[in-house]
Amino acid sequence: MKKAFNQIETIDVAEAVDAVQTYLRDLQNRICHFVAEQEEDKHQFIEDPWQYKDKGGGVSRVLVGSSVIEKAGVNFSHIHGQQLPQAATLKRPELANASFRALGVSVVIHPLNPYVPTSHFNLRFIVVEKEAQLPFWWFGGGFDLTPYYGFVEDCVHWHQMAKNACEPFGADVYPTYKKWADDYFYLKHRDEQRGIGGLFFDDLNDWGFEKSFRFIRSVGEHYLKAYQPIMLRRKTCQYGQKERDFQLYRRGRYVEFNLLYDRGTLFGLQSNGRTESILMSLPPLVVWQYNWQPAANTPEEKLYKTFLPPKEWV
Amino acid sequence: MKKAFNQIETIDVAEAVDAVQTYLRDLQNRICHFVAEQEEDKHQFIEDPWQYKDKGGGVSRVLVGSSVIEKAGVNFSHIHGQQLPQAATLKRPELANASFRALGVSVVIHPLNPYVPTSHFNLRFIVVEKEAQLPFWWFGGGFDLTPYYGFVEDCVHWHQMAKNACEPFGADVYPTYKKWADDYFYLKHRDEQRGIGGLFFDDLNDWGFEKSFRFIRSVGEHYLKAYQPIMLRRKTCQYGQKERDFQLYRRGRYVEFNLLYDRGTLFGLQSNGRTESILMSLPPLVVWQYNWQPAANTPEEKLYKTFLPPKEWV
Repeated sequence: MKKAFNQIETIDVAEAVDAVQTYLRDLQNRICHFVAEQEEDKHQFIEDPWQYKDKGGGVSRVLVGSSVIEKAGVNFSHIHGQQLPQAATLKRPELANASFRALGVSVVIHPLNPYVPTSHFNLRFIVVEKEAQLPFWWFGGGFDLTPYYGFVEDCVHWHQMAKNACEPFGADVYPTYKKWADDYFYLKHRDEQRGIGGLFFDDLNDWGFEKSFRFIRSVGEHYLKAYQPIMLRRKTCQYGQKERDFQLYRRGRYVEFNLLYDRGTLFGLQSNGRTESILMSLPPLVVWQYNWQPAANTPEEKLYKTFLPPKEWV
Repeated sequence: MKKAFNQIETIDVAEAVDAVQTYLRDLQNRICHFVAEQEEDKHQFIEDPWQYKDKGGGVSRVLVGSSVIEKAGVNFSHIHGQQLPQAATLKRPELANASFRALGVSVVIHPLNPYVPTSHFNLRFIVVEKEAQLPFWWFGGGFDLTPYYGFVEDCVHWHQMAKNACEPFGADVYPTYKKWADDYFYLKHRDEQRGIGGLFFDDLNDWGFEKSFRFIRSVGEHYLKAYQPIMLRRKTCQYGQKERDFQLYRRGRYVEFNLLYDRGTLFGLQSNGRTESILMSLPPLVVWQYNWQPAANTPEEKLYKTFLPPKEWV
């Protein structure tokens, strides 16, 4: 008999989904707590629970207009769909017309201060079920950093935490997922990286569920360890209009990446997800300036020349 | 013998391209003249000639920061490529691996005053050549209007001019291309129109070259007739921060449309066109605000309820 899904292990779907959901909901709470703590008059998140058309839904949390965080979106979602969207089946045609569950946490933090990088973090768990076949599942996720002004110590720390997250799972894990992030967070039409990368992975299941889930949690725990010290170091840096203008300009790249390339965004929009939650990742204020180039020997030029090109930070 | 290309008429490619190019370059000049004339201290366009990697190139003209026009891009391009990009061959697989020429004028005008709508206009001529086969060609284009505040007389005028442009070519032309614009300038993920539409057409060749080219010119001439009186009527309207905020917010939809759906943008980026010229269409300053909704019985709500849903304006 033909094995339709290349599945290595059968899982108890209800149990696995429950375990992942419990972890992700708790992580969402802890990330929101971190964001809300960034200033003395602790800003509150708006919380929006929503329903998905087929089944399931999510809880979006958004914080805007604080003196430290201009916009933060910390989303949890768990949707059940009748048909995997095209963004997920292009590489896996055998999964077309299969029903699915997708659980995930997705975080984008756009700080006000241009010296604090934007950070993005995502974990997702997909389970596909098709009649008379074993369930097929995989994990995906990662975190990446988008600085406007580069600081070597921040980049080294960020990647050290990414490496630490991966280390217990094999020596090749960090190099592999670091390169995947470099390849993924790339704007082909600009021949430019979105930021300094970090980790990106998808289709993770060949470790089996237990080890994969442990890895997911390790990535989750290391995201805050990676971002927290950078936030603390930079959030009080003095800046002026020049730095703010550059930040608003560079945010345009964030929009271009998310709408042109980002799998999560396209998956969400194609599966008729909740648009406001999916596009929560977009920066609050953005500038497009025709053919702008940084002047020679400025910190802005240094971002392009020194920080954006992929390199080994640790 | 199998007729590989569904071509109705052979044209002299060099002659046809030359005629279309002459018209489009002249039209580009006239549109720039119109834009520059919008204020007393006539602003000048920046002109950037550029080369395409394979062959050909273009002339981009951009005006920014005038007191009437916040950003205008008036592009001419004429590129020769070795291979039609995917955006053009999805529906015409027989044209894959064929070399092509693409000539076009593309215009986007983002006024400063929120009472003046953004307008978009495009004409393009594509010729595909494949060894041992007759050349295949088609025209595409149209114009559409994106108001922030709706005025019935503006919408009626805009569509009257669209209708006038089409009238000499048959009674069904305006209804057909008006509907095509309604279908095309639609943000599926918002279930929302980009604006009030106008005309959109593509794959136009079944009239033969002469009639098609006459139609193209009629569309070109009517674009300015359609936009000019609206610009004149609205550019001196008083507005405040509320209207400006709404304009910046609505501009987000413009970005979403162009990066998620627009054929010209995707064609350009996929053919490794000049990114700065392709993305010239993006507004200069944009706001994304989570889950914003217009208040009841405001002009902002009226835009959504009365003006954006497709309707017969003439």
